[in-house]
Amino acid sequence: MNFYSKFKTRREKLNSLLCVGLDPEFEKLPSIIQKSENPLFTFCKEIVLATSDYAVAYKPNIAFFERFGSQGILEFEKLIQFMKSTFPEIPIVADCKRGDLANTSKEYAKYYFGNLNLDSITLSPYMGADSIEPFLEYSDHSVFLLAYTSNPSSSDLQKIQSANKLYFYEETILFSSKLNQKFTNQVGIVVGATHPKEMKDIRDGEPEMIFLIPGYGAQGGTLEEIIPACGRNSLINSSRSIIFASKEKDFAEKSRDSAASIHKQMNEYLVNL
Amino acid sequence: MNFYSKFKTRREKLNSLLCVGLDPEFEKLPSIIQKSENPLFTFCKEIVLATSDYAVAYKPNIAFFERFGSQGILEFEKLIQFMKSTFPEIPIVADCKRGDLANTSKEYAKYYFGNLNLDSITLSPYMGADSIEPFLEYSDHSVFLLAYTSNPSSSDLQKIQSANKLYFYEETILFSSKLNQKFTNQVGIVVGATHPKEMKDIRDGEPEMIFLIPGYGAQGGTLEEIIPACGRNSLINSSRSIIFASKEKDFAEKSRDSAASIHKQMNEYLVNL
Repeated sequence: MNFYSKFKTRREKLNSLLCVGLDPEFEKLPSIIQKSENPLFTFCKEIVLATSDYAVAYKPNIAFFERFGSQGILEFEKLIQFMKSTFPEIPIVADCKRGDLANTSKEYAKYYFGNLNLDSITLSPYMGADSIEPFLEYSDHSVFLLAYTSNPSSSDLQKIQSANKLYFYEETILFSSKLNQKFTNQVGIVVGATHPKEMKDIRDGEPEMIFLIPGYGAQGGTLEEIIPACGRNSLINSSRSIIFASKEKDFAEKSRDSAASIHKQMNEYLVNL
Repeated sequence: MNFYSKFKTRREKLNSLLCVGLDPEFEKLPSIIQKSENPLFTFCKEIVLATSDYAVAYKPNIAFFERFGSQGILEFEKLIQFMKSTFPEIPIVADCKRGDLANTSKEYAKYYFGNLNLDSITLSPYMGADSIEPFLEYSDHSVFLLAYTSNPSSSDLQKIQSANKLYFYEETILFSSKLNQKFTNQVGIVVGATHPKEMKDIRDGEPEMIFLIPGYGAQGGTLEEIIPACGRNSLINSSRSIIFASKEKDFAEKSRDSAASIHKQMNEYLVNL
């Protein structure tokens, strides 16, 4: 099943938009986990087992694995294998923010889509279409292009005005939309939850595209503002408030409680949509 | 010694701007290498041993290693270790095109600058300053921000006009320049050799910044056009025409011949600068 169908099926089943971000920052892991043999894998596996009832999707960020080089990537591979065999119905978005020349992007695509068979990946749009298309040739898989990111410095380049009186992030969205027309439903965009006002306008312009929305919770956006603005074709990511709900032995249980609570809120806000 | 000094020392010693790109695309490796235990490492090691007399810098692109996941990254680590112990005077630019939220970029920086002690890295500028500064806090290391890339689709976003009547890549250069003022000599830009006309204007605006220039040779730019335009504060990258000069057993010897020939041309063009 392709990413788009998998996402929609899962969203309808749970009536939620919750994407659980797997950002296993080593220093923040419970000390019992830090001492284990494969700490990143073990931690994420426990989180996934605890939260799978509430996850419309998972988004592991590879930076937290890559930090430990080949050993970290080995743990990433173990995690993906575990997730795909245990919960094949839950789509996985690899948060990698890659992008390179066509023949080089092809190498990344071979690994993430060919070998690991991940459902989706985040990419930087800066280099243009030929840096993205090698991923889209894997027709069951999708990409999310950075458009208007959640960080404070997103304004540095993304809010420069263009000659068309658009912000640069709006130009990126037009570019992404065109690519999504060519590769039907394979292209989504990343829009930060820290921009609830702009979110509404972006959604009005792009009713169908899937938005990946980081920055809810720890970074500041609230569900009350975001959900009416972003609508149902969205994945709202929460990482820290779920995975680091506790630093003690009960971290998995507490992550489940936190995911359940967000799930319930999403159910309620979605009724009104 | 920091990247900037290492680069200048090496450039003056060789009177050249040659950066040797290490892009070990598996299918293009000599069959004898393909069959070896660590093909990517073995190939690159042989190339480095053969070309070190002519390399002002090396630029391994991690995509070709990441394609093979943890095993590929292990070979990347072996290569970096070998290069740093054998030729500590030759700076290494890791071509990674990373970039993420501040706390996530920090993880990448820990690996590339903290653990591997690479001299420099390429980054995507799209997310703005807080995605780049975690790398710049390692004061002996530098970054190259994608500005005007060498690929055909670079025009998709990079040539959108801004309200200031600049191309977007020019806005990126202004942004990079400001960051370079704050973090003295730690920020360079990537400008493709496929844009020789624009190169001159970019250099006039930024006389001191270091340019990393891909796209010479296989992608189309010529030294005759590029060198007078980019000037001495530049690294001109050549990958394929050096590393794949032969697919036979003599690949290392032939890569040396190819590097020597480019070296000689650079020597000549630089006399006139």
